[in-house]
Amino acid sequence: MVKIVVRFKYRRDITHSMELWFDELHTENARLGFRIKSELEHVRSEYQDIHVFDTFDFGKLLVIDGTVQTTERDEYIYHEMIAHVPMLTHPAPKRVLIIGGGDGGAAREALKHEPEEVHVVEIDEKVVELSKKYLPEISKAYQDSRVKLHIGDGIKFVKENSGFDVIIVDSTDPVGPAEGLFKLEFYKNLKNALLAKGVVAQQCGSPFYHPEEACRAYKEISKIFKYVKLYLAYIPTYPSGMWAFVIASDDKITMRRMQNFKTRYFNSEIYQSAMVLPEFIKEYCKNQK
Amino acid sequence: MVKIVVRFKYRRDITHSMELWFDELHTENARLGFRIKSELEHVRSEYQDIHVFDTFDFGKLLVIDGTVQTTERDEYIYHEMIAHVPMLTHPAPKRVLIIGGGDGGAAREALKHEPEEVHVVEIDEKVVELSKKYLPEISKAYQDSRVKLHIGDGIKFVKENSGFDVIIVDSTDPVGPAEGLFKLEFYKNLKNALLAKGVVAQQCGSPFYHPEEACRAYKEISKIFKYVKLYLAYIPTYPSGMWAFVIASDDKITMRRMQNFKTRYFNSEIYQSAMVLPEFIKEYCKNQK
Repeated sequence: MVKIVVRFKYRRDITHSMELWFDELHTENARLGFRIKSELEHVRSEYQDIHVFDTFDFGKLLVIDGTVQTTERDEYIYHEMIAHVPMLTHPAPKRVLIIGGGDGGAAREALKHEPEEVHVVEIDEKVVELSKKYLPEISKAYQDSRVKLHIGDGIKFVKENSGFDVIIVDSTDPVGPAEGLFKLEFYKNLKNALLAKGVVAQQCGSPFYHPEEACRAYKEISKIFKYVKLYLAYIPTYPSGMWAFVIASDDKITMRRMQNFKTRYFNSEIYQSAMVLPEFIKEYCKNQK
Repeated sequence: MVKIVVRFKYRRDITHSMELWFDELHTENARLGFRIKSELEHVRSEYQDIHVFDTFDFGKLLVIDGTVQTTERDEYIYHEMIAHVPMLTHPAPKRVLIIGGGDGGAAREALKHEPEEVHVVEIDEKVVELSKKYLPEISKAYQDSRVKLHIGDGIKFVKENSGFDVIIVDSTDPVGPAEGLFKLEFYKNLKNALLAKGVVAQQCGSPFYHPEEACRAYKEISKIFKYVKLYLAYIPTYPSGMWAFVIASDDKITMRRMQNFKTRYFNSEIYQSAMVLPEFIKEYCKNQK
């Protein structure tokens, strides 16, 4: 089980034992690896480096700047949890805004709540294009006429648009293009873009590897909204498998409607239980200035 | 980020780029890797193949038959969750039995409940020996005179001993030496070894990769005990990061005492929330014959 791993070039004489792996480096010293059948596409877009792989165990895999975004096998967990928690917190969400989420997964789940409009604001049209091409089950939301795609900057969009019931911030991590989505000014603009009983949810990383990211998002958003909670989901293909989201509103955070659609991970009990945090996260957030 | 990985022998001319990784193969096509500083010990015992590594990010790492057993960095999650859930379900646990758990971690947590005796029945004395040598924070329970170590077969032990309030089955997965610990006859003997209000808990694998293992354990143990529940914990170094345990008793499963000791993961809300299962696990267990 111990392997000495060295990068080297293709050598014809050893192809009999060749295996192609994509490993996401969670840190310099920890990695999660997927054996891949083939690299379907590799694009360097205006904003980032994008790969689509066909894996043996996880179906198609979308990777941006070396980090796993979604796999066909477990995408439902992330998308259900980022969408249904805020959507069910709102009594009747009609206008929904998704910042990021170019793969279409969050929009697909939001549509289960019968909204009138779902606006997706994705900065990188290559993400949309590749998702439509390789991830049909995730991107099928784009076939629905209620889904309006805007290619552009989410930060700018929330400054210039308003009247939303729910805003879902489904971005990459707070390094690179998504950095501004974790700042106080953005949260202020989010609030202005929301209607009175509006609800916002945002993914905020692995609290095992980066408790500071989840706690910082929690603290910043708490300056703007009256009620704020972190919640968690098991996501096998994300670093540590423990993933955090933050939900915020000026109205109490509670499940206001029954779930009347099918899910594979989320259920009404999970709405509650996902908000229960392990001691180490509570301690970390309490002690952080 | 794409690497072609081939096993090959040490070559002096490429040591400048050498990295030593231990990768647990979760399947043939998925792996979690730890960069290691050194292999501290490798023993082939009478029962299994045991490695102790010094890792860069996770402290010391104990590996049995190629699978991660425990790391210094995240061991508290597993040990708190396997011990405190059953221990707090019992009104006053005096005599505790741990099957497996040779590293001492479950015993360390059980001691926080002030029991009179904690019996650890580990089949492989090498596990105890290596844990004492390399994992002092985990194995320190052995310094407590209430902890009685028995080197032997847990299956045999529960046939020949009884009078326990809580039994914790902290074994390897149901292949190899631990296979018999997931069978109906063993569960019958567990029940006979317990006192009237006795409680049993057992680790039962990753429900993401192996829902059949958790559901089978649930079904089998349900034939013997009146109240049975599955519960989950986030364990970053185990396959998929989502880990299942089963708890069983003839008395209702509820938290009967307050927690009066410090933990890093467990808390009284987690006692409840850990028992909330995602839809895919509920579906799987319902549909399994």
